[in-house]
Amino acid sequence: MPNSHFRVKLDHAAIATSNLQKLLHVLRLLGLEDQGAEDVETQGVRAYFWEPKPGLTKVEVLDPIKPESTIQKYIDKRGAGIHHLSFMLEKGRLDDLCEYLKKNGVRLTYEEPQAGAHDTRVNFIHPESAGGILIEISEKSAK
Amino acid sequence: MPNSHFRVKLDHAAIATSNLQKLLHVLRLLGLEDQGAEDVETQGVRAYFWEPKPGLTKVEVLDPIKPESTIQKYIDKRGAGIHHLSFMLEKGRLDDLCEYLKKNGVRLTYEEPQAGAHDTRVNFIHPESAGGILIEISEKSAK
Repeated sequence: MPNSHFRVKLDHAAIATSNLQKLLHVLRLLGLEDQGAEDVETQGVRAYFWEPKPGLTKVEVLDPIKPESTIQKYIDKRGAGIHHLSFMLEKGRLDDLCEYLKKNGVRLTYEEPQAGAHDTRVNFIHPESAGGILIEISEKSAK
Repeated sequence: MPNSHFRVKLDHAAIATSNLQKLLHVLRLLGLEDQGAEDVETQGVRAYFWEPKPGLTKVEVLDPIKPESTIQKYIDKRGAGIHHLSFMLEKGRLDDLCEYLKKNGVRLTYEEPQAGAHDTRVNFIHPESAGGILIEISEKSAK
């Protein structure tokens, strides 16, 4: 198989926590900085972003704000855990990457990318195509 | 509480996979580069490292090589998943960070740091102190 011509970076690791305050306490002790929170209505969660330094891979802490949130269902079923890894690519490349993945037998969660946190468009690689884990792929929205 | 005087970065996210080949296929399609594998005898795993670019946060894929591996037990109990996040700090600071965390009520897995992959010393923050997730803290070994 030829090398992929896409280049992603790990934007953040997203955590579904069972104890928000204990987790934030530890992130603070480690020296990460609080970048504020944002409600993501499409996912039914409040997302808290913490980062080591600007530009480096962040931690996203997911707190369900709706009972039907997929994050609440995940916690109910599996307990707290690291919910997904989110890879970002250059703006304008997400649709091409989705096509490329599909052509190579990878199942995506959405037919078309959805609105994510921090002005992004996102899709997900289904765990059955990624050895059991959930991978988000994203790009900044065109504005 | 005063600000922490430690500064960590997210070195890698570690995955316990149920299907190594499918996961590696996806990482390759995303354009991550294979950095080789290393057996970590203390954890009973083979660790495959994949990175977007040198210096950026990596993905570590954990494949159990002993039935008593904690990773095999994790997969048996919970299924595949993102097993832990690993934060690295400057060389020579890990013992101080461990003391600082303990003084602030954080439970660590080991009394003393252990040998990790890639010439590191590592300890773990127990999930009961981190809202249900496992956090590795590490530094490069003095050599």
